[in-house]
Amino acid sequence: MREDQFLSELQKYFKESPRVVRGPGDDCGVVKSVPGKDILLTTESFIEGKHFTHDLLSLREIGYKAGAAALSDIAAMGGKPVVALVNLNIPEKYIARASEIYDGLTEVFSRFCTTIVGGNTEKTDYLALHITIMGEVTRERAIYRDGVKPGDILVITGDLGRPHGFLTAYYKGLTKGYKWWVNDMRDKFARPTPRIEEMDKILKEVEVHAAIDISDGLGVDSFRMAKASGVEMLFYADRLPINESVKHLASKLEIKDWFIAVESGEEYELLLALPPEAAEKIEELKLPVKIIGEAREDKPGSYIIVDDMKIDLSKRGWDALR
Amino acid sequence: MREDQFLSELQKYFKESPRVVRGPGDDCGVVKSVPGKDILLTTESFIEGKHFTHDLLSLREIGYKAGAAALSDIAAMGGKPVVALVNLNIPEKYIARASEIYDGLTEVFSRFCTTIVGGNTEKTDYLALHITIMGEVTRERAIYRDGVKPGDILVITGDLGRPHGFLTAYYKGLTKGYKWWVNDMRDKFARPTPRIEEMDKILKEVEVHAAIDISDGLGVDSFRMAKASGVEMLFYADRLPINESVKHLASKLEIKDWFIAVESGEEYELLLALPPEAAEKIEELKLPVKIIGEAREDKPGSYIIVDDMKIDLSKRGWDALR
Repeated sequence: MREDQFLSELQKYFKESPRVVRGPGDDCGVVKSVPGKDILLTTESFIEGKHFTHDLLSLREIGYKAGAAALSDIAAMGGKPVVALVNLNIPEKYIARASEIYDGLTEVFSRFCTTIVGGNTEKTDYLALHITIMGEVTRERAIYRDGVKPGDILVITGDLGRPHGFLTAYYKGLTKGYKWWVNDMRDKFARPTPRIEEMDKILKEVEVHAAIDISDGLGVDSFRMAKASGVEMLFYADRLPINESVKHLASKLEIKDWFIAVESGEEYELLLALPPEAAEKIEELKLPVKIIGEAREDKPGSYIIVDDMKIDLSKRGWDALR
Repeated sequence: MREDQFLSELQKYFKESPRVVRGPGDDCGVVKSVPGKDILLTTESFIEGKHFTHDLLSLREIGYKAGAAALSDIAAMGGKPVVALVNLNIPEKYIARASEIYDGLTEVFSRFCTTIVGGNTEKTDYLALHITIMGEVTRERAIYRDGVKPGDILVITGDLGRPHGFLTAYYKGLTKGYKWWVNDMRDKFARPTPRIEEMDKILKEVEVHAAIDISDGLGVDSFRMAKASGVEMLFYADRLPINESVKHLASKLEIKDWFIAVESGEEYELLLALPPEAAEKIEELKLPVKIIGEAREDKPGSYIIVDDMKIDLSKRGWDALR
């Protein structure tokens, strides 16, 4: 992906520092804090025409979704959010309605005990939110994307495909009028859930080797995880947790539902790598999680097994510089 | 100012939290951390066409200035920067030259021991940097803008007027060819100094009641400070530290130099309020600081005394929503 190449060129600007546990390249930066705690820092851009359009989301939903996206990075590291900064770039015509954006933002922030402590507002030609979250994680317990070990089982939270399914349906002109399946897809597209509570419960019960926020899609994000960890990752198409609404859309369009699932960005689900002995326990937790694949020792890569085909996932998903 | 009205409406979205020492409304948010330290968080947007244009700054200078602007907020609170997050929105034509922006950013960050620990890159139609800095300050020693007391002396770091002077000269077509005074004005316009070291030295030697980063100009920012503190602030035109280059421009344009000085944004100087007994000590410190006025008990306001006139400063400067 072009974004990955760009980011790896920028790595040279990261300087080692005694205060920094982990620099750029994961879902959050990690900074040493008190004995017992590390600080997590992440920032997300949510830009009109790129990450959202006004015909698909209300101002309140734009606020909610931007906040959820930023919180999801904290979840992926195994942490808890503490405070947020909000940079709002706002066109003249929306200034009087800015409270709708903040209503959405504070709805998701309140749900996860996050307080806005600052930010900036600038009048611009386009609407954009740039959100920074400071979170915390138990010292040296941050979960990274590069910790996958051969033999690990791969677990996904929630379900896959609804955000991309909704966009596909929209661009094919299928979203007019009430349809249960469009509604179900839109629900997750507009109000995704950062998996902070789920991750917290999982970490209390089982060992987690690695995690990543699949905000660009299972395809490319699993490849990033595989590459960072130096393993091959295999997923099974028939195990992916695909929502009924996505199955319905796929059959309507005569395409494979797994294809929608692996391409789907803005899921804000977590992909986790666990030791194989955790398999039984994770299924007993009564959380929305599912074992969908495994890692093995091989050339780094990410593949989906569909019947007896092995299909490369490394380029499936969203590229910020595309 | 329209920005101030907007921000005060947004105050209702700030929720009290046991972890938050100070929410929105100052140069940084302040969060409780270890015993002995508080965390400072600030974020700045630096947007093409609004905060900079390519005919006035190189890519490297854009990076440098954006970084300096964000660091200046940490200085105003009496803190030291630790790490930074950089959200880069970049047009296609600059992607191959992104390292020039990072060279400028890391130049100013390295100078103040700040490490980039994360960020985001998005391809957009315009260039914008959204920079977040996490800093630290000794527990309960953060300096706020609302602490000015009647009788305090008002002290400014550095000199005033060069950024606005440079822009004025540019728009009047006076910047072509080498001219010592244009060069001097451009120096500060392109490479301002966040006053982290000066503030650190001042805090070691004298008591500081309040401080503000006058990034929108002495006029409006002193008014914000006066309003937050509930005092009247008086400045003396003949005491303002105005650079020779600005005096030269003023005489050329047949305007008053103090007028350029109070309107000048992007100064990144600090305005400090000190008890009157600190007057002698602050002048002995051999730092670029000058006593330019005093605070007194009266209706909140900010004024400049020019000969025997008292001129309102509250609307002089930059308004982000104008």
